[in-house]
Amino acid sequence: MTTTQPASNLNSSNLDSPYLYNCWYVAALATEVDNEALFSRTLLETSVLIYRRADGTPVAMQDRCPHRFVPLSMGKRDGDDVVCPYHGLKFDCSGKCNHNPHGNQLIPKAAQVRSFPLVERYGFLWIWLGDREQANPDLIPNYGPLVDGHPNAVGYTYMPRDCHYEVIIDNVMDLSHVDHLHGEIISTRGQLTPKPPVVEEDASSVTAHWRWEQTPAMLIFNQFLPAPQDSARHFIDITWRAPASVQLSVGATQNPEYTDLNLRNCTGQYDLHTCTPENQNRTHYFFATRRNHLEDDAEFNAMKIKAMHDAFVDEDGPIMDAAHREMGTSDLFSLNPVLLPSDVAPVKVRRKLAEMRRNEQPSGSAVNNR
Amino acid sequence: MTTTQPASNLNSSNLDSPYLYNCWYVAALATEVDNEALFSRTLLETSVLIYRRADGTPVAMQDRCPHRFVPLSMGKRDGDDVVCPYHGLKFDCSGKCNHNPHGNQLIPKAAQVRSFPLVERYGFLWIWLGDREQANPDLIPNYGPLVDGHPNAVGYTYMPRDCHYEVIIDNVMDLSHVDHLHGEIISTRGQLTPKPPVVEEDASSVTAHWRWEQTPAMLIFNQFLPAPQDSARHFIDITWRAPASVQLSVGATQNPEYTDLNLRNCTGQYDLHTCTPENQNRTHYFFATRRNHLEDDAEFNAMKIKAMHDAFVDEDGPIMDAAHREMGTSDLFSLNPVLLPSDVAPVKVRRKLAEMRRNEQPSGSAVNNR
Amino acid sequence: MTTTQPASNLNSSNLDSPYLYNCWYVAALATEVDNEALFSRTLLETSVLIYRRADGTPVAMQDRCPHRFVPLSMGKRDGDDVVCPYHGLKFDCSGKCNHNPHGNQLIPKAAQVRSFPLVERYGFLWIWLGDREQANPDLIPNYGPLVDGHPNAVGYTYMPRDCHYEVIIDNVMDLSHVDHLHGEIISTRGQLTPKPPVVEEDASSVTAHWRWEQTPAMLIFNQFLPAPQDSARHFIDITWRAPASVQLSVGATQNPEYTDLNLRNCTGQYDLHTCTPENQNRTHYFFATRRNHLEDDAEFNAMKIKAMHDAFVDEDGPIMDAAHREMGTSDLFSLNPVLLPSDVAPVKVRRKLAEMRRNEQPSGSAVNNR
Repeated sequence: MTTTQPASNLNSSNLDSPYLYNCWYVAALATEVDNEALFSRTLLETSVLIYRRADGTPVAMQDRCPHRFVPLSMGKRDGDDVVCPYHGLKFDCSGKCNHNPHGNQLIPKAAQVRSFPLVERYGFLWIWLGDREQANPDLIPNYGPLVDGHPNAVGYTYMPRDCHYEVIIDNVMDLSHVDHLHGEIISTRGQLTPKPPVVEEDASSVTAHWRWEQTPAMLIFNQFLPAPQDSARHFIDITWRAPASVQLSVGATQNPEYTDLNLRNCTGQYDLHTCTPENQNRTHYFFATRRNHLEDDAEFNAMKIKAMHDAFVDEDGPIMDAAHREMGTSDLFSLNPVLLPSDVAPVKVRRKLAEMRRNEQPSGSAVNNR
Repeated sequence: MTTTQPASNLNSSNLDSPYLYNCWYVAALATEVDNEALFSRTLLETSVLIYRRADGTPVAMQDRCPHRFVPLSMGKRDGDDVVCPYHGLKFDCSGKCNHNPHGNQLIPKAAQVRSFPLVERYGFLWIWLGDREQANPDLIPNYGPLVDGHPNAVGYTYMPRDCHYEVIIDNVMDLSHVDHLHGEIISTRGQLTPKPPVVEEDASSVTAHWRWEQTPAMLIFNQFLPAPQDSARHFIDITWRAPASVQLSVGATQNPEYTDLNLRNCTGQYDLHTCTPENQNRTHYFFATRRNHLEDDAEFNAMKIKAMHDAFVDEDGPIMDAAHREMGTSDLFSLNPVLLPSDVAPVKVRRKLAEMRRNEQPSGSAVNNR
Repeated sequence: MTTTQPASNLNSSNLDSPYLYNCWYVAALATEVDNEALFSRTLLETSVLIYRRADGTPVAMQDRCPHRFVPLSMGKRDGDDVVCPYHGLKFDCSGKCNHNPHGNQLIPKAAQVRSFPLVERYGFLWIWLGDREQANPDLIPNYGPLVDGHPNAVGYTYMPRDCHYEVIIDNVMDLSHVDHLHGEIISTRGQLTPKPPVVEEDASSVTAHWRWEQTPAMLIFNQFLPAPQDSARHFIDITWRAPASVQLSVGATQNPEYTDLNLRNCTGQYDLHTCTPENQNRTHYFFATRRNHLEDDAEFNAMKIKAMHDAFVDEDGPIMDAAHREMGTSDLFSLNPVLLPSDVAPVKVRRKLAEMRRNEQPSGSAVNNR
């Protein structure tokens, strides 16, 4: 006999945990949490309350009152505090109870909601669900280019999905799927599939690079090049960083003088794919993209982010969900997949992430319970 | 591989059972079972058939034919008997097979549906799901005041909920939530929250008493008092009795002569909250209320029970269900709740109920299977 | 933490398997798979892709790419091949990868989808999910009479159900339910219930025979007899064959000269009930019926198959599903059912099937994984 909705397993993390805890995850787009509302989202099987203080600073704590376990998001704000709707306990934005209307009104020492470090950066709210002593904001990777430039040249979107988060990472880390799954607009004319990327890794990241030439250029770029129907040289650079962020830069040029292709000398865009497990079967998928052309065109900007959102939801999404239904929560490698040259990067990511999970000490897990 | 709908666990009760069996539960409001229909409800994970004999006496038996396990409620009545829709076995209202149309028409000794003692009392049908030898109707607590008085002064309602039954008991046993969760109409003007009740217990009950003064009186009563806007003294008395019934009396008076407040000298009402688990995640919640004022007003009566039903469904209900989703079926105490002075009564109930469950002997459980 | 959709358990079959593997199941009606589409159905918890080659021959393979486990049915056909929608691997109709567009385009040895022997016969597609070395089409029972005769005298239908497949077999093997569950049109006027059939069995089949007289004849036949309101002699012969097919012949005659009643001398019909588990809680139920009267009447034919489909869906279906909800996936005998004389045939089937499952060697199971 088990409940249909598992309670948080923050209290029972162990060596077999499917999640990495001591790291920064995206909890929400910055725009999802306005100045008024109590926003709730389940992350790593834990209900999390997020709201902004009067000065705009976002804060996060477990979305349950420590008394009778009612979600605080069902309560009301009182300035920067939040009041439980059930028996009126009030908590400050660090989760500390600062008013108990009951009995002698003494505040029980244990009346403390677990709060989570939360940082607003690059248009996202980043949360740390592990040992808070280790929650150094400098560990958030630098995605500064997203917020460096014209506001009409960047877009963000959120796409909840019914699949395991590692299936989403796999999808981005193996871009050889582009010519098979996606439409004409981002076709590489078959260039990407036969060309295994150059893959590099270090202690906490995996990078893959592709360089190719195609005629015409990718249709998302060719109209911005000098000779739209002619050949152009392209690049893609992707970098995964733990736990679940993949930064992708892609661009094209027709200038033969550039030997080292990058976004400074190509027409292109700087994207971030990042995702956070709700549980092992559902994932919060966030995406942002900045382009370096037609930067002030708000209408084009809205069309662009909508087109990318729709491609993920209509093309990648059903494929990823269906693969997840076939795989369940089994470890990929236990299913003996046939691996292709294009799998080098996603396989390195899976192995590195599994190693990082194993390395999270049980002592660290114990700290989670404070 | 398990089925999505668990079969009855009456056959597998054990020391860790989440339910008390040897006790009276409410199976239905008396009005839910008419003179014709075969009524079915799942109680403690067991499908139960209830119907009324021609003389009006309600009877209960397991809602499955012992041959091929089809619910008898899908069959037809034949006088006081019920006929299985699948192969025509007929059972009398004690569950004994009295007609087998097959083969030599001999009735197999084992062709006996388990019947359950059922008593109609106080507007409810009370069922005994444990050892029938112990099913003494005198063990049904006396809720006589519900049926003692004008028929237009009492109302009943039924509210199925998606939470554990103990969460519902907790809700009624700690009335300090009234000023936080509920609206103006039953506000105590903050009186109840700081005031821990006087709590008493005996072997099978837990009682709590509140006494306070407020201005004006609770809005459900003040219009019936001599000076509606003036101060009035109030009382609430609640008594839990196993397994899951809480009787609540509440009233107000402006007569300074009364020192011992009760429903004989106050304007007030006599309520019964009682609930029966469907399983560990769903509960049948029943409620009845009798008032001692405006007793013959049928329209007021209908408004009153509707208003109380709506308050439970709209205000208590979502909070209880959300707390259950956070708690799952975990034992409350295993989650280390912060306990407040107002928790004394509900905690005593949880502890007493747990002890009673532990005390149900395995031998008693074995008897269940007859 | 488990997924809501179990991955295939073909890789983990064991001695406690709830299914027989080395046998022919019906995967689909022949008409369900047209000349174009990639048809997908889950059989024994395994996703199966079925399509027809250009020459019309149907083929079956596991509906997942061995690379990233995407259902191939989401892909596209390329002649007789199928192309995975995700990364473009192409497979021939035996499941062998014949094109890999990645890297050096070498085809990994392991890039082989498990294919399943599939035979189109008697209007059905029969699939073998076990050890393919044993997949002898001669083991498909002879249901030739279905396709031997006028095309307007036979009908087929498909009825997915929310119950265990053995509950469906039980239903057909004990026809004593006809007078209780079904309507006037196939009433035996109480003849079948008291009359246990003659039951015979051999190594792989169980047969039951009923012979009776009724007035008037079954209403599905009486209008085709010389004296519709008079008495007629009837027969039913049913034969179960593993795993889950029951052939039923039923007819009536008013000619006293016939002593050995059968479809050659009676007005009657030749039916096949056959079913295939999707999992332990859902079953694909297929039905076909051929009559030996009014054989060229297309309108009557359409009415006839619709009436039978409706009777199964409206009358048998809810009863079988409800029985399953009570039983769960428990073994019938573990629930101590009361058995009647009419249960001899279905009990023999359950016992024989359980024995056949037990006899499937683990070595055979290992072969499954090729």
